Amino acid sequence: MFEKLVEVGLLFDFYGKLLSTKQYNVIELYYIHDLSLSEIGEQLSISRQGVYDNLKRAENHLYSYEQKLGLVKKFNDNQNKIKEILDHINKISVHLEQSDYVIKNDIKRIETIIIDILKNDQEVK
Amino acid sequence: MFEKLVEVGLLFDFYGKLLSTKQYNVIELYYIHDLSLSEIGEQLSISRQGVYDNLKRAENHLYSYEQKLGLVKKFNDNQNKIKEILDHINKISVHLEQSDYVIKNDIKRIETIIIDILKNDQEVK
Repeated sequence: MFEKLVEVGLLFDFYGKLLSTKQYNVIELYYIHDLSLSEIGEQLSISRQGVYDNLKRAENHLYSYEQKLGLVKKFNDNQNKIKEILDHINKISVHLEQSDYVIKNDIKRIETIIIDILKNDQEVK
Repeated sequence: MFEKLVEVGLLFDFYGKLLSTKQYNVIELYYIHDLSLSEIGEQLSISRQGVYDNLKRAENHLYSYEQKLGLVKKFNDNQNKIKEILDHINKISVHLEQSDYVIKNDIKRIETIIIDILKNDQEVK
């Protein structure tokens, strides 16, 4: 359940604005504010079953957006690459006083990562 | 017209997969394959007016997706930042044999840009 919560939460962050207002509210109340189906039903004046149906429809939409656009996957990929760049920058700082050889290796790696990011971003298109 | 072509082309790259099949085809034939409304009508067996209506609806959808998700803007912003990182990396390479002061300044700038990119990516969410 926790994994699904994180997963839907992330999908909601990316694609929530594409949902209808009702579906947006149901997902937000269930996954972000942790309300039960009955509590959401009371708050939105719809039946518990209505809440459940809207929730499932909204989840399906979010998964379908990710299947079509893949933004969450790309976001995670790029975050990892950019964090790796930061590691290398830190290594450069540490080795600044040492041999040029070490620095050059790091710079080479940074360039590879950046080219990777640029390619990845192009593929979003 | 050229600007609109580029703009719609970029929006289509990002959000095209969210359009209906008919709207996807109309945009592709008009903006990418440069067919006239009549030619598209013949190809899809719909009236010229039908093509026009679908085209306008599809364009509105694309602009509306961008207004909600802003992916094209973020993509352009990040591309500029990553290109700036590359410039700094190149400067580091050139100055490698020179004073540490120059290198340290570049590393500082790279760190600022990377933090910027990470923040920007967080805001996508």
